[in-house]
Amino acid sequence: MRTPWLRPLSLFACLLAAPAIAATAHDKAVGERAWAAVDPFIGTGGEGHTYPGATVPFGMVQLSPDTQIKPRKEAYGWAAGYRHGDQTIVGFSHTHFSGTGHSDLGDVLLMPISGEVKLERGDATKPGSGYTSRFSHASEQAQPGYYAVTLQDYDVRAELTASARVGWHRYHFPKGKPAHVLIDLRTSMYDYPGKVQWSRLRVRSDGTVTGFRETRGWAPGRQLYFAMRFSRRSGGQQLHDTEQDVVYKGFPPPGEKDPRQRAQIEGRQIVAAFDFADAAGQELLVKVAISPVSEDNAIANLEAEAPAWDFDGARAAARSQWQQALGAIDAQGSAEQQRSFYTALYHTMLGPTLFMDHDGRYRGPDNAVHQAKGFTHYSTFSLWDTYRALHPLLTLVQPEQRNSDFINSLLASQRQSPYGMLPIWAFHGQETWCMVGYHAVPVIADAYMKGIRGFDAQQALDAMVATAKHGPYDGIAQYRELGYVPIDEEGEAASKTLEYAFDDWTIARMAQALGRQDVAAEFQRRAGNWQHAFDAKTGFMRARKRDGAFREPFDPTVSGYGSDYTEGNAWQYSWYVPQDVAGLARAHGGEDALLARLDQVFDAKVDPKIFEHMEDITGLIGWYAHGNEPSHHVAYLYAYAGQPWRSQARLGAIMRSQYAARPDGLAGNDDLGQMSAWYVFTALGFYPVTPGSNQYIIGRPFLPRAQLNLPNGKQFSVIAEGLDDAHPYIGSATLNGKPLERAFLGHEEILAGGELRFHMQAEPNKQWGVAERPYSMSR
Amino acid sequence: MRTPWLRPLSLFACLLAAPAIAATAHDKAVGERAWAAVDPFIGTGGEGHTYPGATVPFGMVQLSPDTQIKPRKEAYGWAAGYRHGDQTIVGFSHTHFSGTGHSDLGDVLLMPISGEVKLERGDATKPGSGYTSRFSHASEQAQPGYYAVTLQDYDVRAELTASARVGWHRYHFPKGKPAHVLIDLRTSMYDYPGKVQWSRLRVRSDGTVTGFRETRGWAPGRQLYFAMRFSRRSGGQQLHDTEQDVVYKGFPPPGEKDPRQRAQIEGRQIVAAFDFADAAGQELLVKVAISPVSEDNAIANLEAEAPAWDFDGARAAARSQWQQALGAIDAQGSAEQQRSFYTALYHTMLGPTLFMDHDGRYRGPDNAVHQAKGFTHYSTFSLWDTYRALHPLLTLVQPEQRNSDFINSLLASQRQSPYGMLPIWAFHGQETWCMVGYHAVPVIADAYMKGIRGFDAQQALDAMVATAKHGPYDGIAQYRELGYVPIDEEGEAASKTLEYAFDDWTIARMAQALGRQDVAAEFQRRAGNWQHAFDAKTGFMRARKRDGAFREPFDPTVSGYGSDYTEGNAWQYSWYVPQDVAGLARAHGGEDALLARLDQVFDAKVDPKIFEHMEDITGLIGWYAHGNEPSHHVAYLYAYAGQPWRSQARLGAIMRSQYAARPDGLAGNDDLGQMSAWYVFTALGFYPVTPGSNQYIIGRPFLPRAQLNLPNGKQFSVIAEGLDDAHPYIGSATLNGKPLERAFLGHEEILAGGELRFHMQAEPNKQWGVAERPYSMSR
Repeated sequence: MRTPWLRPLSLFACLLAAPAIAATAHDKAVGERAWAAVDPFIGTGGEGHTYPGATVPFGMVQLSPDTQIKPRKEAYGWAAGYRHGDQTIVGFSHTHFSGTGHSDLGDVLLMPISGEVKLERGDATKPGSGYTSRFSHASEQAQPGYYAVTLQDYDVRAELTASARVGWHRYHFPKGKPAHVLIDLRTSMYDYPGKVQWSRLRVRSDGTVTGFRETRGWAPGRQLYFAMRFSRRSGGQQLHDTEQDVVYKGFPPPGEKDPRQRAQIEGRQIVAAFDFADAAGQELLVKVAISPVSEDNAIANLEAEAPAWDFDGARAAARSQWQQALGAIDAQGSAEQQRSFYTALYHTMLGPTLFMDHDGRYRGPDNAVHQAKGFTHYSTFSLWDTYRALHPLLTLVQPEQRNSDFINSLLASQRQSPYGMLPIWAFHGQETWCMVGYHAVPVIADAYMKGIRGFDAQQALDAMVATAKHGPYDGIAQYRELGYVPIDEEGEAASKTLEYAFDDWTIARMAQALGRQDVAAEFQRRAGNWQHAFDAKTGFMRARKRDGAFREPFDPTVSGYGSDYTEGNAWQYSWYVPQDVAGLARAHGGEDALLARLDQVFDAKVDPKIFEHMEDITGLIGWYAHGNEPSHHVAYLYAYAGQPWRSQARLGAIMRSQYAARPDGLAGNDDLGQMSAWYVFTALGFYPVTPGSNQYIIGRPFLPRAQLNLPNGKQFSVIAEGLDDAHPYIGSATLNGKPLERAFLGHEEILAGGELRFHMQAEPNKQWGVAERPYSMSR
Repeated sequence: MRTPWLRPLSLFACLLAAPAIAATAHDKAVGERAWAAVDPFIGTGGEGHTYPGATVPFGMVQLSPDTQIKPRKEAYGWAAGYRHGDQTIVGFSHTHFSGTGHSDLGDVLLMPISGEVKLERGDATKPGSGYTSRFSHASEQAQPGYYAVTLQDYDVRAELTASARVGWHRYHFPKGKPAHVLIDLRTSMYDYPGKVQWSRLRVRSDGTVTGFRETRGWAPGRQLYFAMRFSRRSGGQQLHDTEQDVVYKGFPPPGEKDPRQRAQIEGRQIVAAFDFADAAGQELLVKVAISPVSEDNAIANLEAEAPAWDFDGARAAARSQWQQALGAIDAQGSAEQQRSFYTALYHTMLGPTLFMDHDGRYRGPDNAVHQAKGFTHYSTFSLWDTYRALHPLLTLVQPEQRNSDFINSLLASQRQSPYGMLPIWAFHGQETWCMVGYHAVPVIADAYMKGIRGFDAQQALDAMVATAKHGPYDGIAQYRELGYVPIDEEGEAASKTLEYAFDDWTIARMAQALGRQDVAAEFQRRAGNWQHAFDAKTGFMRARKRDGAFREPFDPTVSGYGSDYTEGNAWQYSWYVPQDVAGLARAHGGEDALLARLDQVFDAKVDPKIFEHMEDITGLIGWYAHGNEPSHHVAYLYAYAGQPWRSQARLGAIMRSQYAARPDGLAGNDDLGQMSAWYVFTALGFYPVTPGSNQYIIGRPFLPRAQLNLPNGKQFSVIAEGLDDAHPYIGSATLNGKPLERAFLGHEEILAGGELRFHMQAEPNKQWGVAERPYSMSR
């Protein structure tokens, strides 16, 4: 074993371990500063698709304003419910994705109103046409765990905070007008007729309102239950089913003729208004718990988690959780740098999300209720995105327990999957089959290789193998037969072949570590399947047909459905061999040839209109598309081929052009934190190009000083001496005082704690970092 | 206390108690004869709406052939799925109502086919247009717990039997053609687009097929889960979603492109075909368990109840259960009399039905899962029908435990009801709000007054009172305010006032017995509210407006929606004061006036076309409509007014014209056994006109000899000496050898065991039975 990242952890265990008590005091101050620096509006405009509302780290509830509810075909930009350019708020719903390119959720929308009750949300462009209200950004306040806004049309001040399973609302109503709260079970991100398959709203005798809805959205047949309580007794309510043209409504329940006499309603278009006459000029608190299991479980969540009417206490608790989580990194720099950095770090802790009731029950991919035994169940796994940098980052900044819980959740899903597969793109326990590959595999392998042990590794390996051998999924049967996915039988075949090969390599790594030589050998072979996609004639990765020939005609600029690629084209996908960059270089005819191709990627003149049909391909620098994940490792590839300084230059350009501390500051969908995790790693100065390798490629630091407060209690500092805009290049580096001549770090080197110190300079030092090649170049 | 039915039971306890061992041997022989006499085809034609399929007494599964699937507007006649006049079979589904006038269920339809797979059921009038097959009655065999038929189009012999929660299929396939089993989750009694809100089918790795469907039918949002196993391994399957025009189908699961590669499918129009190549010329067994809770629970039900592949054993067990149940009455008479009688008795044991898994969990009226503690949960309560004679009959022929379970199920529903109400018309745990009144109340009161004690009586009384005071339900608020339901605020107001008043009287009875004087007094007052419906001017019960005036114009022949009555007119509803026939007679000006009115009912010349718009009003004798429940007590009213012989004559006419031992032999919907319970009681010679009174009115016997083998181990015999068509009148009677001069019996007299002996004669004995008046005439 000649690579330092494979050394036993114990060699480093004695280094630089600060006393725990000091770390705690320091962490607290860091956390407070970090929390204050976060701007939840970053990403709510432009392409980020983030939301500004209230949640706790990895919380089940994400309580946030929805500015418009869009029909399916226009929904892309409203995937998080909120767009910074909008001037209206429809209401506050309890579940949101952070940064997705597809939309769903938006469950249980509440809207506090004063005056006349309106039941339809109306036209956002016509104020007063429905219950939707105008608002101004000047009235908004957003912090991690807290959001507030004034609803102009009603003169209602609305404040939101959250605990793990409960959304907390505090509404201040104006004097002189009747106060109401609307509950609209019809709205979703996104909307289409028939999306709500069934819903129910019930007013219990103690005033608790419970219900559920079942939607056919991104996840089919998804059920969500809720329970809510008001701090004042409602003076009355009206429950409506606004659906027309119902073939059979059934016999009318008691009070059917009068919406005000109804105690329960069920149907597909349910909306209700609750009256709070005595709340005029006063505050009303609402607590809303959600549950994947049942109304009774939602009540139990509410009672366990939110026994008191203490909004400020809940807000303080959320703030405290965020301060602890964000304090994992002490980042120095300008106010704007800190705003960008900590908002990015904040955005990396909005998924995966808790998906389990207080009693440990949750709903699995079989849509059945299960009991979590010995772990906390999470869902919302955007794995095609997040295996790259998000999960590796969480390994460094979150407790091992949380990372183990993620993996135990993946393993539970595999056991409960009707297909025996690990999740592909799952939320609320349900599989969506979105994107390609089986990237739960590298998440598990990376965690295992990094020493996370809170799960059954042998069982995990079996689950990984079962997933990688499930023939009916996306051409795996043919991939096993031919060594590649044939494009005449399966779409986006080049991307699939490449991604399967990488995932397979991580299985081989973990199998090797576990002593499962047969599995290791089989998957090491499969890891080489990327070669079947490489066309030496054109120098691109391409899709073959079953007969072995590449599909013709071929145009490396073509992307999208029907092409050889997933959300990309040949210019973007042809560098995807993180497990064997040496092999990739050899295929191209050597390192220089590969370097020349990389330059062609970045320096091309590309008319962005070529991707107008592809919503996700944004953030272009030449063909490099930072707004989507297949490009995320490409700038780091220069460092593999002996030119770390070129990586440094490209990263500078990307950081300058693709991120900004303003609402439209994210060049692409944040994708549950992957865009932000890329930022955090890159700002620190290194990036996990090859999950499963335990190696980080050093790019260049963007902060003068940063300290990782690691889950093992140690600190790892990165110091960039002399760093400024005029001095962006690494001149030299030391690790714990000793010269560091390689452009990569081992995970164990970080975990051991210590100090990585860069000396920055104006011109590139073309000799630095070339003495030793990173893992997949060094075999 | 001057009436014998209020005497303590102990006075009779020593009489005629036969040794238990002898009774058992006798019962066994009786049971075998009774079982052999049942003809499940009776009622499957005409108006009966019964099904010929396989079930056990009060079983959760009712596995029966469906001959056509009708759209909603034509569905009335196909409420049980099967019509004897049809020549096709669509398949075998697992849940059916016996005798309803509204339709639903028909869950999980299986169809064994040979040859080419067809996925659509086709047009029943065009053989071969779909998978529906022709059949002939000659190939059918139906017994309690067993059904068999040959499907002509496929040359498949299909046999069905059932255990409580499992439907058992045995198919014999022809040689030389591929064998398949279709599973169609789209079909229902009845069908309309969108009825299936969601469904799922999953093939597990061990070959078990599980799934669920959620329908919006008579009960909204009803979920049913299932699990099935085949005795042979399927060689392959194809899973289809045939719904077109789906707005959003989601990302395709593995194998989506090929229905043969799918392991799971979900959607709204699911159909699947399973191949059994090796079953050609062979038998295939299928076991299908259902569950209200989950797929896992369905599997558990399957494993607990049907561990072996023993169709014949299951059939024998079902037969044994039926023999035990039917042996409760040893009825003598002609073969045709026995066929009618035992088929009627059989039909009284098809509801309420078990609705609980092996682990005690079930789904309640809040659509949540509950755990039954200390009782077995039943549902399918057609209470407007069955409080009259079905539940009183089951009190005599079923163990106290079963009757207590029914009541505990009602009480659990009340606790779990979003409205705090006892069931009105419930099935599969769900409330349908069908029909009027709150007739769980007389069921509970009658059971309590008859000494059934396996429930908390005080809690039951509270539940009854809560139900009777739930203001929003069907004008109860106004009824409490005004003493009647005002027709200008609530439809069918005359019927509601009358039925509430009777139900209230039973609350008063039970409250009195429990020493709850305040409740007794309040509800005794409410029991007199029938008087507010009586119009002395016309002599009819009518609906008043809020201002106190009767609604005008008035036509006593008008029935149906918008009228003053529920499934009836003034001629049918005006005699509904079973709690105070004396008062009714007084209101009419005396017994003679009432008698004259009763004659007007029976002797009127009525054109049946007047009820063409009312599906349920059938079986006319004058205005008397035996096919619907409001008439069921009317013929017995003569006995109250001193003319038992006129009851005897009318009953003879009804028995002759309204029942026959052939498929179209029921003049009206069997209504979960109420029509049949009327037959059983009337054939025995007495009828419970006033549930809650512990009194049976003696009509006349129709069997030469019958013996009730009572749940307490005693026997009560009814012997009709000299009975034949020419000697239909009671000349005299003895009870345990002593002259009986009254036309009524106390429940305690029956429970004590003994012998009621009639001496029949050709001419009426107008003096017999007039010496003493029944309960509600005697105060």
